[in-house]
Amino acid sequence: MEIKLAQKYGFCFGVKRAIKIAETNKGSVTLGPLIHNPKEIKRLKQEFDVDTQEDMLKTPEKQNVIIRTHGIEKKTKEALREKHFNLIDATCPYVAKPQEIAQKMSDSGYKIIIFGDANHPEVKGVGSYAKDPIIINSLEKLTRIPIPNKIALISQTTAKPQEFSKIASHLAQNCKETRIFNTICSATFENQQAIDELSKKVDIVIVVGGKNSSNTKQLLSIAKKNCNDSYLVEDETELDMTWFDGKKTCGISAGASTPDWIIENVTRVIRQV
Amino acid sequence: MEIKLAQKYGFCFGVKRAIKIAETNKGSVTLGPLIHNPKEIKRLKQEFDVDTQEDMLKTPEKQNVIIRTHGIEKKTKEALREKHFNLIDATCPYVAKPQEIAQKMSDSGYKIIIFGDANHPEVKGVGSYAKDPIIINSLEKLTRIPIPNKIALISQTTAKPQEFSKIASHLAQNCKETRIFNTICSATFENQQAIDELSKKVDIVIVVGGKNSSNTKQLLSIAKKNCNDSYLVEDETELDMTWFDGKKTCGISAGASTPDWIIENVTRVIRQV
Repeated sequence: MEIKLAQKYGFCFGVKRAIKIAETNKGSVTLGPLIHNPKEIKRLKQEFDVDTQEDMLKTPEKQNVIIRTHGIEKKTKEALREKHFNLIDATCPYVAKPQEIAQKMSDSGYKIIIFGDANHPEVKGVGSYAKDPIIINSLEKLTRIPIPNKIALISQTTAKPQEFSKIASHLAQNCKETRIFNTICSATFENQQAIDELSKKVDIVIVVGGKNSSNTKQLLSIAKKNCNDSYLVEDETELDMTWFDGKKTCGISAGASTPDWIIENVTRVIRQV
Repeated sequence: MEIKLAQKYGFCFGVKRAIKIAETNKGSVTLGPLIHNPKEIKRLKQEFDVDTQEDMLKTPEKQNVIIRTHGIEKKTKEALREKHFNLIDATCPYVAKPQEIAQKMSDSGYKIIIFGDANHPEVKGVGSYAKDPIIINSLEKLTRIPIPNKIALISQTTAKPQEFSKIASHLAQNCKETRIFNTICSATFENQQAIDELSKKVDIVIVVGGKNSSNTKQLLSIAKKNCNDSYLVEDETELDMTWFDGKKTCGISAGASTPDWIIENVTRVIRQV
């Protein structure tokens, strides 16, 4: 079988960086899972003795504590420092940026509006750097509250650019001064665009990723629009060889939480079909 | 005839302020016409000896020079200072604000985008405070140029809020950091809203203003939508008494460049019908 990989797929820059940090700090503890992929977390435990703890403050002191990709709340970071943990920051730089902006703009007297999901750890972390931030997940919510005079708008890194821009538009008309920081990371959309192009050119598409991962499911749904024979597998054991009957070219992509080694295992098996 | 004045009409705050400044500085010279209304300029000359000069730098030195409502270019202001004129600033405060912003943001490394008419004296003045500003009168123009990383967006005071907001929306999606200063003045739109309401409640509408004034013509066109018997006059001598036959209530509004004394003359004549 001829294999065609999507131009962009799998781990984003921030996740790759976090894993490298974990691998080079054997025996560390991460506060919450480093990334949302149990198989990769298990591998880090087995090969690098990197453990996961949910509540660091209740665990005994340990030398190295890795802060995960989504970042953590300011007060938690401060509490960790007070306990004299050695903090290793694996917060994605694209997440650290809105944290910095939230702090700086809030200190400068701007009201912080975060466009994102209030329950997402990234948004909780970013919001913790501002004084009473307004967190909205839709323009509609913004139309129901009074608009302050000086606003700084930031965004969850995975927010939709079109929605973000609608909010900016509303603020431009209703606020004297708005500072807009486009903190959206393009990785998710690049993966989606890549599978959209790839799936038009192949006979079958395999998407590798967690069945509960929403970004993986989105990739599958985009592929299916262009190629009926599109399937989602968590690893190579889930491949059904009859799928490939009469096919010549297989396109492969992977969700943002799928490590390269799983993708490579899947690719190796398909190549031999 | 019963008279109903529009809730908002005629001179805006900045024009009223400029005329008061001229009246309290007898014998001054204004650089270019203080406002765009020849009858009012003539009155200021006759009653307050306030003269108009087009090119101050070619005229002999004189004590008091009034800067008109639209403001002037920075280099002209500097040249006037060098010539030791006594500058009296009648620049509308709503125009002085974007001038300040342009200077400050340009000095701070932001590329200035002005939404407005490049040939309008206000926009020329504001632009002169920035380093190589980009002046656009439509979103379309913005899509044809490369977008810098740090932008400060300001607006001509009379720009349309909806268009301004579309530009803000485009920048939010395509620029890392955008500072949006809503420098639109609401006076024009308030006059339009007021005549829209008034013209639904009266038998005849008289709009007082220059026949070449675009904002006056806009008022007439809004009135005509609601009341067929709507007329535009430059002063009381243009009133045709047959218009009022069988009418009970007359609504009156005026363009932004129409002085109160002309409106009062018109009103006095109509009241006696």
